[in-house]
Amino acid sequence: MRRLLVLTLLASFAAGSAASADEGMWLLNQFPSDAVKKAYGFAPDQQWLHHAQLGSVRLAGGCSGSFVSKDGLVLTNHHCAHACIEQLSTPTDDRVKAGFLAKTRADEVRCPEIEINDLTDISDVTAEVQKATAGLEGKAYNDARKAVSARIEKACADADANPDRVRCDVVTLFHGGRYDLYKYRRYQDVRLVFAPELGEAFFGGDPDNFNFPRFDLDMSLLRVYQDGKPLHPSDHFRLSRKGTQDGDLTFVSGHPGGTDRQLSLAELLYLRDVAQPDRLLQLAELRGLITEYQQRGAEEKRHSTDLLFAIENSFKAIKGRELALATPPLMDDKAAAEADFKSRIAKDPKLQAKAGGAFDAIRKALDRQREIRLPYSFEEQGRGFQSNLFSLARSLVRAAAERPKPNDTRFPEFRDSVLPQVTQRLFSSAPIFPELEVETLTFSLTKLREALGADDPFVHQVLGKKSPRELAKELVGGTKLADVALRKELWEGGTAAVEASQDPMVLLARRIDGDSRKIRKTYEDEVEAVVKKNEELLAHVRAQLDGTGTYPDATFTLRLSYGQVKGWSENGKWVPPYATLGGAFDRATGEPPFDLPATWLAAQSKLKLDTPLDFVTTNDIIGGNSGSPVLDRKAEVVGLIFDGNIHSLGGDFGYDISTNRAVAVDSRAILEALGRIYGAEFLAKELSQ
Amino acid sequence: MRRLLVLTLLASFAAGSAASADEGMWLLNQFPSDAVKKAYGFAPDQQWLHHAQLGSVRLAGGCSGSFVSKDGLVLTNHHCAHACIEQLSTPTDDRVKAGFLAKTRADEVRCPEIEINDLTDISDVTAEVQKATAGLEGKAYNDARKAVSARIEKACADADANPDRVRCDVVTLFHGGRYDLYKYRRYQDVRLVFAPELGEAFFGGDPDNFNFPRFDLDMSLLRVYQDGKPLHPSDHFRLSRKGTQDGDLTFVSGHPGGTDRQLSLAELLYLRDVAQPDRLLQLAELRGLITEYQQRGAEEKRHSTDLLFAIENSFKAIKGRELALATPPLMDDKAAAEADFKSRIAKDPKLQAKAGGAFDAIRKALDRQREIRLPYSFEEQGRGFQSNLFSLARSLVRAAAERPKPNDTRFPEFRDSVLPQVTQRLFSSAPIFPELEVETLTFSLTKLREALGADDPFVHQVLGKKSPRELAKELVGGTKLADVALRKELWEGGTAAVEASQDPMVLLARRIDGDSRKIRKTYEDEVEAVVKKNEELLAHVRAQLDGTGTYPDATFTLRLSYGQVKGWSENGKWVPPYATLGGAFDRATGEPPFDLPATWLAAQSKLKLDTPLDFVTTNDIIGGNSGSPVLDRKAEVVGLIFDGNIHSLGGDFGYDISTNRAVAVDSRAILEALGRIYGAEFLAKELSQ
Repeated sequence: MRRLLVLTLLASFAAGSAASADEGMWLLNQFPSDAVKKAYGFAPDQQWLHHAQLGSVRLAGGCSGSFVSKDGLVLTNHHCAHACIEQLSTPTDDRVKAGFLAKTRADEVRCPEIEINDLTDISDVTAEVQKATAGLEGKAYNDARKAVSARIEKACADADANPDRVRCDVVTLFHGGRYDLYKYRRYQDVRLVFAPELGEAFFGGDPDNFNFPRFDLDMSLLRVYQDGKPLHPSDHFRLSRKGTQDGDLTFVSGHPGGTDRQLSLAELLYLRDVAQPDRLLQLAELRGLITEYQQRGAEEKRHSTDLLFAIENSFKAIKGRELALATPPLMDDKAAAEADFKSRIAKDPKLQAKAGGAFDAIRKALDRQREIRLPYSFEEQGRGFQSNLFSLARSLVRAAAERPKPNDTRFPEFRDSVLPQVTQRLFSSAPIFPELEVETLTFSLTKLREALGADDPFVHQVLGKKSPRELAKELVGGTKLADVALRKELWEGGTAAVEASQDPMVLLARRIDGDSRKIRKTYEDEVEAVVKKNEELLAHVRAQLDGTGTYPDATFTLRLSYGQVKGWSENGKWVPPYATLGGAFDRATGEPPFDLPATWLAAQSKLKLDTPLDFVTTNDIIGGNSGSPVLDRKAEVVGLIFDGNIHSLGGDFGYDISTNRAVAVDSRAILEALGRIYGAEFLAKELSQ
Repeated sequence: MRRLLVLTLLASFAAGSAASADEGMWLLNQFPSDAVKKAYGFAPDQQWLHHAQLGSVRLAGGCSGSFVSKDGLVLTNHHCAHACIEQLSTPTDDRVKAGFLAKTRADEVRCPEIEINDLTDISDVTAEVQKATAGLEGKAYNDARKAVSARIEKACADADANPDRVRCDVVTLFHGGRYDLYKYRRYQDVRLVFAPELGEAFFGGDPDNFNFPRFDLDMSLLRVYQDGKPLHPSDHFRLSRKGTQDGDLTFVSGHPGGTDRQLSLAELLYLRDVAQPDRLLQLAELRGLITEYQQRGAEEKRHSTDLLFAIENSFKAIKGRELALATPPLMDDKAAAEADFKSRIAKDPKLQAKAGGAFDAIRKALDRQREIRLPYSFEEQGRGFQSNLFSLARSLVRAAAERPKPNDTRFPEFRDSVLPQVTQRLFSSAPIFPELEVETLTFSLTKLREALGADDPFVHQVLGKKSPRELAKELVGGTKLADVALRKELWEGGTAAVEASQDPMVLLARRIDGDSRKIRKTYEDEVEAVVKKNEELLAHVRAQLDGTGTYPDATFTLRLSYGQVKGWSENGKWVPPYATLGGAFDRATGEPPFDLPATWLAAQSKLKLDTPLDFVTTNDIIGGNSGSPVLDRKAEVVGLIFDGNIHSLGGDFGYDISTNRAVAVDSRAILEALGRIYGAEFLAKELSQ
């Protein structure tokens, strides 16, 4: 079904160096089976790889998962379903705190905002994209690139018997060295089946996050439905009762969100000196604010828990990345590799003519980005308007303007291929909390004024003579967009309805739309276009000089990594690879975030306490891999990725086998807990068939 | 009285380059009068300089000021007295919000924690310090350096007729190139006379902070008392009714807190990559937390306003510094200058033998600092225990152990020369707010656990099985240290009393004292000792190679800068140097932080609205200069420094005359406001005599 591609444009950034042992987030259609065979005596064959592809799924919101039963059960992390579980809770029925178990299929509850994608086909569309962009530069290049992607995606969906049930994405690999068309089955009827209590799923909280030993049952079970019935997926994995042993070969099949291993030095400096520090400071302040907001009361704490988790998780991850870039010798090594690459380009007059200026062009585009980044991120990317109600208003206003346009000239986020995700969000029944909306909107309006200055015309247009809090209260208090029916009306009514609306949030979104489109255009034409074009040039040159054979930077597309169960040495002390169920009880203090739920305390005597709960492997993963299955040679699920250790955070820029570890829930703990703690032996049974 | 010194060891860091026009925070005993004469046709003579020295004062907590009447009136900023004004307020009598005016001297109220220092004598003690440290390295060098400073300070005080009324500090200049003994008169009976409403003193709030045009009357008046009567200082300035004109020559006499212009590259990298980002993230999170804390209610807002100001002010200042270091070409220039300096050292075998290894030694010491900085800052520097009550406990515990030791082997902060400041804080009547204490202590205990890890033995010792919030509540709820009488008892009872105390905060401070002393010793012996010694070596080499004639990095000692009233070009647009009283009314929106107080609105029609309110000059200043008088040729006060523009923040690392501006309140506005807004013509009169 999926055809193998002839590889053309593959090379690692570090000039001439091949990926080191266990390194790599490999494309499934270009998996280094020979290397694995050499290292571990086992090579996945085509059938194995095909099975891994079909069994693996993506949660479109940013996670991975896998089909684990013939009846459409999907195994993923608790933290990947946390938002859904919170959305399905009420002040008096808090399923985040108490956990959730559907005793029958009738009790399974639909998640309002989860979309699941199952990858069925990959095809190489590089030639088509290149033809469309040949000889073009700047804005013309960028527009052509986007338009051809839109056309390819639309043609792919239209060719399917059920266009509504597929999702076609043109994905950029190797920073433009290659373009592939990924075709997925798209599922939006996804129901919550099981979730443990947050207290155990996230035992140890932020202090233990990205650390090990770890004692988290960070799992949830969802079920995919189609036409009102459980889906029978074309393939699925079964959970292993046997699990792993120290040293065992492991595969991780999932969707790493993004890496920056192949960026140029100028791009890394931009990340280190501008983008990451900026984001960290914003997250830190918001973290302090929401932490204190939680002190307002139990309900405020309840409805802001997932938000605080997301903030703290991002903060720790980006802080690790920043530390990696700021710690010698990483940047010196990158600089040396780039200097070497440049000198090899310079030796060939043809290459020099083609790509000799690319590094400088990228650097200059980033200088331009430094100038416009604040208005761009605050006005257009929504940083000045952090509010679900504003996002809804913005979507409605933008959709009204974009949908009437031809598919290939719309903003990419309103292409036909993406609209089902847009409407799922727009018509979501997830509750909105006005009290929290006022706080996040006040915060972001304050930051908008801080970033652009009190005298900036855009700031004046937004705030007038009002303070951020006064305006936020007015907008949140006045808007009716919490009403799904109204949102449907405005969506269906299109431009006329949106223009007639007197809803204050819609009016705001309309009032700023001109300015924010303008700054977006500046960004796209003067920064994005130049960076994409020149990255592509460099990718071609790299392939020519270094040949093919490595893996591309992660792009939230399916990848397979290989490695083994293995501890590591921390300050001269060996950290063993397994943490047991019993360890959770030893670590518990009774005080959050180290308080085990009552179900665990009650079941303690019944449990096999030496059962591994969590374990680490050398697999090369990154954010987005959350929820990925860890597979053994038989392609059985032996674990469930939910984290990396602290050293893995630098994995954004490179992989170090000596310390970089993936962290997974053990399949044995999943089965043990379902059976002996949660009274869900029926699920354990379904998972192991 | 103050003798001029023969200069021996003066050179700028940037190899061979002299200070550029208007650059420099000059020592008063080494002022470049010739350069000023050449540029502006006027040179301050010895009498002028002596007058400037005696009229200028330092607020020991971190600000500058000046005597402005024969009866001991001190002019400084509102933000320098903000803490005092808050301490003298109650929930029902909020002097921060309402302002304060003592109609008679009997109404003047003592500030519980302000100490004022007036510099009377400077003497060079370099030879004595060098003799004590000759031939020593590492810990031995460092201990000897501290001991000799303690001995010199004590001898200086003992030689005075009133040892209790003087303060003697050995100050390090040029990073060890020179040591001077500064002798001050010390005043602790300082009373609040006048403060405008915060709404005007800090009009525009954080958004306008470090920006211009600015419309703040950021002033306060204090009066120094001695033996219960107003002090008649040996010298004072008078306020000018005439003020300045665009282009006028201006001097700023004050106490810049610190600059980093002469640091080595390794030290700058440590600041850029480690110290500053770390501090910014901590401040950002605390800012979010306190911002949200203020939403709890009017009283919470009232008692946390000065704290939030301090956080936001530091955040913006350090962010500006970080931006300066992260923006090319500053670091490249510093690297080139250092490379040049190194090569010049290498050319002379004797210099090379003496200081050739200094750069590497500093770099290695900073590598060591990277390893120990978190335990050092959290355990010893108090970052893990942000609470006034804990600080009191720590002071009592440490004082009990240190005071019995000989003066020259104590921790420097418990030397006889510093004890009056310690006891002023310890016995301060300033109110403590338990609700706020719980929040800041919870926050810092959480950060302690985050920084060192949940499994760190120190963290275990502090928290046991408790959560940060639970422990913070227990400690704040249980301690009796809010009672000044108890603090006096423990101070006077010394070791026996402290060891017998069962106060939970005292017990905590005692419990962690061993560990925190240990990490302090590691820092002092392995980092501080190496850095100080090698900075000193480099300072000597610099003096030898580049000669003398520049100014040392700022060290919160008295400096004089020169410059002129002058606007600057911002994005191609000229920013004029004056902002008027009328401009404040134009900018007011009625919403915080742009709401003018009722007194201003009521007085509007009576005011001369074209009176300059704030103005900018090219004077080279930095934090600590707040409250400094701006003097004209006649040494009359024409302005009151309260800020720098946004470009001045990079002034930590260098001075750029094209954009760097100091921001001051205009003397004319001070007199106008006192007379026509605040009904304090009697003060205006006292100031202009």
